[in-house]
Amino acid sequence: MKLTRKPERGVDDRAALDAFLDGQLTGTLAVVVEGIPSVVPVLYVRDGDRLLIHGSTGAGTLRAAAGGAPVAFSVHAIDGIRVSYNGFHSGANYRSAVVQGYCRRLEGAEHLAALDRIVDGLLPGRVAEVPPPTAKEAAQTMTLELPLVPGGWLFKVRGGEVAANPEAGGVWIGFVPLTLTAGEPEAAAQQDAGIHIPDSVRALRARFDG
Amino acid sequence: MKLTRKPERGVDDRAALDAFLDGQLTGTLAVVVEGIPSVVPVLYVRDGDRLLIHGSTGAGTLRAAAGGAPVAFSVHAIDGIRVSYNGFHSGANYRSAVVQGYCRRLEGAEHLAALDRIVDGLLPGRVAEVPPPTAKEAAQTMTLELPLVPGGWLFKVRGGEVAANPEAGGVWIGFVPLTLTAGEPEAAAQQDAGIHIPDSVRALRARFDG
Repeated sequence: MKLTRKPERGVDDRAALDAFLDGQLTGTLAVVVEGIPSVVPVLYVRDGDRLLIHGSTGAGTLRAAAGGAPVAFSVHAIDGIRVSYNGFHSGANYRSAVVQGYCRRLEGAEHLAALDRIVDGLLPGRVAEVPPPTAKEAAQTMTLELPLVPGGWLFKVRGGEVAANPEAGGVWIGFVPLTLTAGEPEAAAQQDAGIHIPDSVRALRARFDG
Repeated sequence: MKLTRKPERGVDDRAALDAFLDGQLTGTLAVVVEGIPSVVPVLYVRDGDRLLIHGSTGAGTLRAAAGGAPVAFSVHAIDGIRVSYNGFHSGANYRSAVVQGYCRRLEGAEHLAALDRIVDGLLPGRVAEVPPPTAKEAAQTMTLELPLVPGGWLFKVRGGEVAANPEAGGVWIGFVPLTLTAGEPEAAAQQDAGIHIPDSVRALRARFDG
């Protein structure tokens, strides 16, 4: 994939892509079903040179992806709004990754390992804190692997300054930052007394500390 | 569009869909180009029974949508992570809307009105605070209308309590809330002195007050 427009916004750096993907939680999986685009938001985790996506074995978009349909996976973060001297120059600062390719459905030991990787990706160390899924639970879940290969991804960053115009003075211009922020972890009502928030949950919280 | 799986998560209420869409800023537009899904994140605004999307006239995904390709538009918000007694029962609470259909490219007065609507959707009242786009700027921007029609959208809400298991005591269970939060507006370095933050920017800030 190549950026033909605004190539200065393209980031051709795999480490930068990885850092971005590792900082986000959700993406949008798109497939084509009978000529029509079908989309679903999903949690994902990056694991080396692949993205891991999971969901119910009954989910239509995932089933199509598992069945060999070409996919596009989009992850974006909105970092704030540039407020410029007119509407045209105003807009969002964002980071956006798109990965195109084909998914492979994981089975057996690969599937179980992917489930663990997804849990630990979201809540680092959680797998060691809790029991594994039952065989029935594992069978109800589908895991898909989407490779990150050269030419198969695009990473764009729109940042920078707010456009100013000396002829349009008297108008406030600036930036409104936006961040996905975690609040205090809330123990469930059924929570046994005296159990402290574990490291896995603290790690998730720290990742989105506003 | 109908939810065949987990129908209890479907919300068949247009007012609820509207409230959700009006609370978010960005979505992912998916089209099919030569059998392959093509996706791009965009800012959008709801205007009555339609979504308005804009972008550069050079953007490939938007051009395909303007050219009559079927589209799917996905908007999602992640509201937090349920941390349950095992990985299977853990996951995201989210709200998700998908709109399928065909876009119409707006031209002339409709295009200019849509540009204003998009600016005021993001920064309420901003159109009255700033000069309009120049003719050249308006010509560099494309606006698309995607109708919200019965049967053409799906709205899902995954909320609710964290699953507990009396046999898996001793494990912390609970919820980590996540919210898109705006920080203090930052005046640009080129900002003329003595200009207060306008109502439009205060309104954006208030919408995402953490």
